[in-house]
Amino acid sequence: MQIAVVGGGLCSPEACETARQLGLLLASRGHILLSGGRGGVMEAACRGAHEGGGVAVGILPGEREEANSFVDISIVTGMGQARNAIIVKSADVVIALPGEMGTLSEMALALKMNRPLISLGSWELPGALAARSPEEAVELLDKMNQKCDAAGEQGPMQENKEMLS
Amino acid sequence: MQIAVVGGGLCSPEACETARQLGLLLASRGHILLSGGRGGVMEAACRGAHEGGGVAVGILPGEREEANSFVDISIVTGMGQARNAIIVKSADVVIALPGEMGTLSEMALALKMNRPLISLGSWELPGALAARSPEEAVELLDKMNQKCDAAGEQGPMQENKEMLS
Amino acid sequence: MQIAVVGGGLCSPEACETARQLGLLLASRGHILLSGGRGGVMEAACRGAHEGGGVAVGILPGEREEANSFVDISIVTGMGQARNAIIVKSADVVIALPGEMGTLSEMALALKMNRPLISLGSWELPGALAARSPEEAVELLDKMNQKCDAAGEQGPMQENKEMLS
Amino acid sequence: MQIAVVGGGLCSPEACETARQLGLLLASRGHILLSGGRGGVMEAACRGAHEGGGVAVGILPGEREEANSFVDISIVTGMGQARNAIIVKSADVVIALPGEMGTLSEMALALKMNRPLISLGSWELPGALAARSPEEAVELLDKMNQKCDAAGEQGPMQENKEMLS
Repeated sequence: MQIAVVGGGLCSPEACETARQLGLLLASRGHILLSGGRGGVMEAACRGAHEGGGVAVGILPGEREEANSFVDISIVTGMGQARNAIIVKSADVVIALPGEMGTLSEMALALKMNRPLISLGSWELPGALAARSPEEAVELLDKMNQKCDAAGEQGPMQENKEMLS
Repeated sequence: MQIAVVGGGLCSPEACETARQLGLLLASRGHILLSGGRGGVMEAACRGAHEGGGVAVGILPGEREEANSFVDISIVTGMGQARNAIIVKSADVVIALPGEMGTLSEMALALKMNRPLISLGSWELPGALAARSPEEAVELLDKMNQKCDAAGEQGPMQENKEMLS
Repeated sequence: MQIAVVGGGLCSPEACETARQLGLLLASRGHILLSGGRGGVMEAACRGAHEGGGVAVGILPGEREEANSFVDISIVTGMGQARNAIIVKSADVVIALPGEMGTLSEMALALKMNRPLISLGSWELPGALAARSPEEAVELLDKMNQKCDAAGEQGPMQENKEMLS
Repeated sequence: MQIAVVGGGLCSPEACETARQLGLLLASRGHILLSGGRGGVMEAACRGAHEGGGVAVGILPGEREEANSFVDISIVTGMGQARNAIIVKSADVVIALPGEMGTLSEMALALKMNRPLISLGSWELPGALAARSPEEAVELLDKMNQKCDAAGEQGPMQENKEMLS
């Protein structure tokens, strides 16, 4: 699956460590990591994906030079915050870590676009699932996958939210 | 000024009437109305602008046929929810009426992009000003304008939030 | 109609004068002028629209400060050259004046998106109509309008190219 | 390097075979393939990348379901032809195969954005390099890389055009 991890461009040591562990867990399960490709939560998640031997895609607001050093593939949109919609639209599932208004806009777009949304210590929004740890977030993903497999579904997992609820 | 009015694609009779009155007040003061150009709050605000003899710009997500019948100028982005960022970025001030996740994403983007944000019965976010009626929202705008005039400023009013606070 | 005028950010005195006259003619017929909102051909066309008492919409690549001084309504996309697609998609007809690669990309997009395209001294592309003067360009527009009226059509004129050919 | 291969959504057997060979050569040299992710030239190039054990990124105009079956990573822009600018902006070098107006718009954008552009049987534009075969196109890339290495450069190769000329 393609999993977007969104969160602040600055992060506390705890949030950074959570993001790194999440990136590592996602990579070890073979998921592709999508993020905004910059610092803070994004960089920590990309670092984790790198440590886990996975692929980190950075969907950048401006120029390629903005990418953190763990981004493997840079999508250089040049379209500022409008790129938030691309991150969300490209994701099977969105996982949100602590962040501010940019993160909130991405979470709202995820719900608007019917993408399953997991809040890992981030904003609480009606329709979002809550996870308390990276492990719990990944367990939620696994359940989504199994339900889809059981249903014989393929491709994007946009129906997962309904399945889980 | 260019004022964006954001809100739900469906609206209660009360919210629709509020949006219409707001559009009318904005037009009567010579402001240009920006909106997403579709139904609900957007259509009611455009209707008000029309009644007030003003100009309503619809920044549409998809095709031109989506515009409500009170849109004077259609910007056909063809880029779905990513167009929310254009609405906000083009606005001197954003006024939010009741809406759901699309509206919330626009409010969060307004704060992210340092646009002054007035919530008229919509989501409560730190950094947003609250207005209880269209008249109060327009009074807030007038104060922003005066402070800018007093400061000898011209053009976009992106500093207004600081001035007001 | 919403008419996009595209062309170089720098222009020769002749091309600038042609753009100004075209803007004036379009405004005097009640058309809304769309352009990229910057200098050169764009500025001259906006100046003409202003002189003709019309409305000039600038669909800007970056920030609002980039708008030339004759832009009445600024659409601040913040998305660089990707905004070219919005200019074209929002237009009933695209008129191209001399320009370089940005202009060529807009002309190609116009044909790709089935917008009628008039080349007024610009690149020659299969499918584009050629005009030798602003008057001739506007006559082509008038013919498009009449054929639409005769056909009882309303709204966007995207079928005009077929009608003319 | 990230190499964009652009070309028609439909292709002749010859152009398809050229695209497939090009994708294979790029993958075997470790380059990441960017494309529009749909059919024709895009699909053939992705197939080649797949055969060569490489990574194919599809930057899609609409929905994820549009991706051809050899796309490894889908960037779902939902922004139609405006996505062409993202393909080009994300690329170190753009290689164009036969195509129509969409392809021409991408080639023009490449030159506008100062991306090195190789025409492999596609439109002839001033500033584009011409290659007669996939092998020759890849040789041009290798030369660009060596000159960059010699210059001690890293990262995006946007200066290559100047180096080659």
